[in-house]
Parts: sequence; C-alpha cells; structure tokens
Amino acid sequence: MIIGKVVGSVVSTRKNENLIGNKFMIVEPAHKTGTGNIVAVDNIGAGIGEFVLVATGSAARIGCNMASSPVDAAIVGIIDDGSELK
Amino acid sequence: MIIGKVVGSVVSTRKNENLIGNKFMIVEPAHKTGTGNIVAVDNIGAGIGEFVLVATGSAARIGCNMASSPVDAAIVGIIDDGSELK
Amino acid sequence: MIIGKVVGSVVSTRKNENLIGNKFMIVEPAHKTGTGNIVAVDNIGAGIGEFVLVATGSAARIGCNMASSPVDAAIVGIIDDGSELK
Amino acid sequence: MIIGKVVGSVVSTRKNENLIGNKFMIVEPAHKTGTGNIVAVDNIGAGIGEFVLVATGSAARIGCNMASSPVDAAIVGIIDDGSELK
Amino acid sequence: MIIGKVVGSVVSTRKNENLIGNKFMIVEPAHKTGTGNIVAVDNIGAGIGEFVLVATGSAARIGCNMASSPVDAAIVGIIDDGSELK
Repeated sequence: MIIGKVVGSVVSTRKNENLIGNKFMIVEPAHKTGTGNIVAVDNIGAGIGEFVLVATGSAARIGCNMASSPVDAAIVGIIDDGSELK
Repeated sequence: MIIGKVVGSVVSTRKNENLIGNKFMIVEPAHKTGTGNIVAVDNIGAGIGEFVLVATGSAARIGCNMASSPVDAAIVGIIDDGSELK
Repeated sequence: MIIGKVVGSVVSTRKNENLIGNKFMIVEPAHKTGTGNIVAVDNIGAGIGEFVLVATGSAARIGCNMASSPVDAAIVGIIDDGSELK
Repeated sequence: MIIGKVVGSVVSTRKNENLIGNKFMIVEPAHKTGTGNIVAVDNIGAGIGEFVLVATGSAARIGCNMASSPVDAAIVGIIDDGSELK
Repeated sequence: MIIGKVVGSVVSTRKNENLIGNKFMIVEPAHKTGTGNIVAVDNIGAGIGEFVLVATGSAARIGCNMASSPVDAAIVGIIDDGSELK
C-alpha cells in the first residue's frame, strides 16, 4: 500500500455502471514516487487533508467487495493522527 | 485510477481477435507520472479533449465485461466539467 | 496498453516449458515512460520497425490464450500506417 | 520481489475490516527505484532496521493467506545478516 | 518481460513457508527503467553474469507452478549468448 493525503475529489456523471454510488478521492502520495496523484475509491469515509492507506491493483477490487468493478485503487485505512510517516 | 485527457486515437487492423470492435483512445495523464501516454479502450464514449478516469490492470478487463480480452487500461468515466483536478 | 516500436528480438534456448514456441520481441515504448524496452510475446506477426500495441500484466496471459504461461507482455495489435501517435 | 529496509510502522484505527489484526510496516526500497517508501503487511516479524523481501501485487494477498484482503504488499522474508545486497 | 543480468543472490532463513526451497537471484535490468534491481525466483538455473528474461506480476506465480506462493518475479529464460540486446 502507499501512504497518501486526500487532496480533493472528482465527479463523473457518465461512467461505468459498476462504479455508480462510489466516491472518487484524489490522493497525493506522501513519498516521492514514480506516480503522481491517483484517484481512489473511498468506502472508509476519509476527509480532505487526512492521510490514508491506499491499496492498488486487484487488491482494491477484491479486498473491498468490488470484485467486478473497474477499480484499481481504494482507500483502505485512515492513518491515526500522530503517526510518524517516514 | 488515473485522471487523463483524451488526446487521440489509434487504429489497428491486424489485432488480437478479442479486441475487434473496440475503440483505442490515447490518454495523456493529467498528473506528473512515471508513465507517458497510454492507450485505453473506451466503452463510455469519450471525445478528444475530455478528461477521463482510466482504470488499469485487471480492473480494466474484469470491470468492463472484457474478462478474456488483452486489455490493461479502460476509460471508465468522463469527469464532469468544472471538476477541480488537483 | 502502450504503443511501442519493435526494435529487435531475443532467443532463449533454456526457458520455462510454457514458453516453448513463442517469439520474444523487444519493444521500445513510443512515449516517454518510466520503463525502458520490454520483451513481449508476439502472436500477431509484427516485424522489426512496426508500431504495435502491447498489453501488459494478466491481460497478456489471459487475453492471448496463454493463461498458464509466465508472460506479462504481449503484442496484441499492429498500428496502421498513418496513425498519428500523439 | 524488492529488497527494502524496515524504517517504521503506521497505525490505522479506522480501516477496512479485512485488515484488522495486521501490522503495517513502512519499507524503504534498497535500490534506486521509481517508487518511494511502501507500506507492507508483516506476518514474519520483521523489526525496524532489518532488510526484508517484499512481494507486491496479487502475490502479497494470495501468497500470504490473505486472498480477500486489500493488501498489495507483504513482507515475505527477512534477509540474513551478511547478505551482499547488490 | 524484462531483460536483466543476474548480479547476485540473497539468503532468507526466516521467510514465508511457501517460499522454502526457492533460490532468490538479484537481477539488474538491462534497459533504463523506472525500477532498480529486483529479486526473482529462479527455477531455470541461471548463473551470476547471465542475461535472463524475468516475468513479473501474476505471471511469475501462475506461469511457474507457484500459484499460491508470494512471488512476483521469476526468471523464465536464459538469453542465448550472442543475442543483441537492443
């Protein structure tokens, strides 16, 4: 998983039907990384500014009860305040 | 998922038979990223210049009813006008 | 998928038995990318110098009837001459 | 797999229920890499400062008896002291 | 797959039980790439200094009869001497 900060969200009205009802949060990776911001489905209830754990790949679908959805990233935890993010 | 802008399309006459009938759009990632432009199958109807959500990996196949196709990226949503793409 | 140019091929006599009979082409990504050249199995018949679509990950195995082979990249289409590769 | 050094851990109280009971270690890749630090589940008992093998992707879930958990990275071995990490 | 050169090996005594009996080789990618050296399981018998094909992701597990092991990279072929590695 990667650690990231929730920096925004996006709205998509025209989308794959298996995505209906999901929230799409924009997450900025906390560590230098080869990738820029990513969009992760949030079923945990993360707010803007919170640090989160993001699972990517098939883990996002299968681990979050969305096995047949086109989801490749999901917020799977909110990191407790005071954690030292090395 | 990543956010990207549709910048073009490609045509491939000689291709895997499981790809027949698909549209291949070239998507430029909106955020700095380790990857350059990618080619995504589009079943949503995105047009050149629109910002889209792209799912990658097995999510593209399985989430878009193409489980047995050699597809590793698919446009799964069109981002609404006015969204702030942080 | 990514767009790439076929720049060579490799021969491997000692290899996993599930790979026997495959052609291994070296593909140079057409867009700036985090990865360098990759080796893709070719079942389409691409020639040196042609631009191709390469599927990566499980899509290469499952979408090309090689579900039990150790293949993570496959040429799945040859891009038509005259395509504008943005 | 990649080689990395365990540099810390994170705590997440609000998380996906399939993650309950897991330890999340922050691992710094030992080689120059396109990715920064990653968070890996640890079932081996690695300590801060130890060098470890990290498996990523579906291997982390399926190979560590967490097939239905949203886990994309796991510590799967502790590298013996004295190994030369080229 | 990627082409790489075997530059070393690592030993891990404390490891996931599904990894017991495997050899872990350190492979340096031959082409500029976003990733540094990776650790690949070797069932082919590659030696230090040889150039090899490495399969990554689920292909490494499923294509090499290690479907339930936490393995995300495997040496699947040794490249013949004299191959031109473009």
